[in-house]
Amino acid sequence: MGIPDEHIHPTATGLAAETVQRHQEPQDLVFYAGWVRNKLSLLKVRTAVLILYGMQFCPFVQRTWITLEEKGIPYQYKEVNPYKKEKHFLDINPKGLVPAVEYKGKALYESLVLCELLEEAFPSHTPHILPEDPIERARARIWVDHITKAFLPAVFRLLQAQEADAQDKAREEVYAALRTFAKEIQGPYFLGEQFSLVDIALVPWIVRDYIWAENRGFKRSDVGEGYVKYAALAEKRESVLQTQSDKQHYAEIYGRYLTNEAQSEAAKATRAGTVIP
Amino acid sequence: MGIPDEHIHPTATGLAAETVQRHQEPQDLVFYAGWVRNKLSLLKVRTAVLILYGMQFCPFVQRTWITLEEKGIPYQYKEVNPYKKEKHFLDINPKGLVPAVEYKGKALYESLVLCELLEEAFPSHTPHILPEDPIERARARIWVDHITKAFLPAVFRLLQAQEADAQDKAREEVYAALRTFAKEIQGPYFLGEQFSLVDIALVPWIVRDYIWAENRGFKRSDVGEGYVKYAALAEKRESVLQTQSDKQHYAEIYGRYLTNEAQSEAAKATRAGTVIP
Repeated sequence: MGIPDEHIHPTATGLAAETVQRHQEPQDLVFYAGWVRNKLSLLKVRTAVLILYGMQFCPFVQRTWITLEEKGIPYQYKEVNPYKKEKHFLDINPKGLVPAVEYKGKALYESLVLCELLEEAFPSHTPHILPEDPIERARARIWVDHITKAFLPAVFRLLQAQEADAQDKAREEVYAALRTFAKEIQGPYFLGEQFSLVDIALVPWIVRDYIWAENRGFKRSDVGEGYVKYAALAEKRESVLQTQSDKQHYAEIYGRYLTNEAQSEAAKATRAGTVIP
Repeated sequence: MGIPDEHIHPTATGLAAETVQRHQEPQDLVFYAGWVRNKLSLLKVRTAVLILYGMQFCPFVQRTWITLEEKGIPYQYKEVNPYKKEKHFLDINPKGLVPAVEYKGKALYESLVLCELLEEAFPSHTPHILPEDPIERARARIWVDHITKAFLPAVFRLLQAQEADAQDKAREEVYAALRTFAKEIQGPYFLGEQFSLVDIALVPWIVRDYIWAENRGFKRSDVGEGYVKYAALAEKRESVLQTQSDKQHYAEIYGRYLTNEAQSEAAKATRAGTVIP
């Protein structure tokens, strides 16, 4: 996501702040997370420090953080101020890519790629977030793709739309995407008993959906009963709670989406009608 | 891709036709491919027949077909007329999703998901299209993502743009996406010696780039020397040649893109400014 107003300092709060506190020791895995979702740089890195910033707002960052917490992978969290980035962070990641993971001397990015990396690079860490069966894995990836291509663009349009007509249209697109998704929920989680990458891909937007409920007329119950039950369960998952900041701290940044002034890459892409990076 | 004009019958020609001929025996793996790239239905299927149609035009289909050929996975090809779909095809796949694979009783779709499925479901079939090392796999996925999000939307805009200004803008976007990509080519293939999913994701558009060269002023040499060399090698890969129809048969369908009349899902999404499904 892009750089917010300078007066908004991206410090985790609530349970997220406690999780940050527990992850201050240097580790082999380095997790960079925060605002700037630029792309396309891959750099050799040397040290082993986790740097995490902007966490309390960025749903893309939360995906990767949930995966770390879910699997109990050792990592270090280090908050970086996006307006005054540390030299080490810029040395290994000149474009400020986040979320990013520094692991065994390389920096990688893209929230979903990072989740799959954590699954593959730490095979002894359970629970697994992808099914063992290749067919079921493919099915999971199809629905992650649905979240990326159908749900996310619609929800950003809903947030940023200023006219009532455009809001109504976007809200219906959000409902359509979620209803299609909800039909395939096996329960209790999307794939059944396994909490998976499909749930992780969506849940950061479930915990934030009160924002479009309060400001854009969204109702979980308008998606359907099955979805209401699914969303209520997903948002109470331990790894989700542990990576969640206090609600009041989300309000400030989302206010800028609601007035269509947000400067994140996702917000700019939505305004321009291009692909969310 | 969407349904083209009825007079265009989607029959593979050239080397692709010979490959089809070699894959007429029923197999456990069923490969549906063709025009309609609708989504979001996952159905139980029972039989084991490969049905493939529209192959000579659809680059998304070619990705999956290249993977099958590359790895020597047994499959059956069966051409289906998109204007008169067979009952079995519609029974297992009511929305006409292609490319789709029918395997052990399930239908799956999405070209890149299918490529990964083939890699995972046939672990003894080499060469592998993803590196063994999780970090290198993540790196591969980052660049596949770049093709999806940066290159593809630009190339569809370039094809469909009617005004000179819009064509110039789209061509520069194509160059920018390819130059960023080209900087990371290890040579001879993207990841080095291994022909991988990154190459497979892009090469169907390399073999078709004479269309935007002839009609939209695109030049490989304007991307850079490294790219010229890379593209020339990739398009001569055996699995690419074997899934290629004669050039004149591409001309008809791409004519409809060049006048912005194409009805594929990708063409419609590009016109509407939404995400290519």
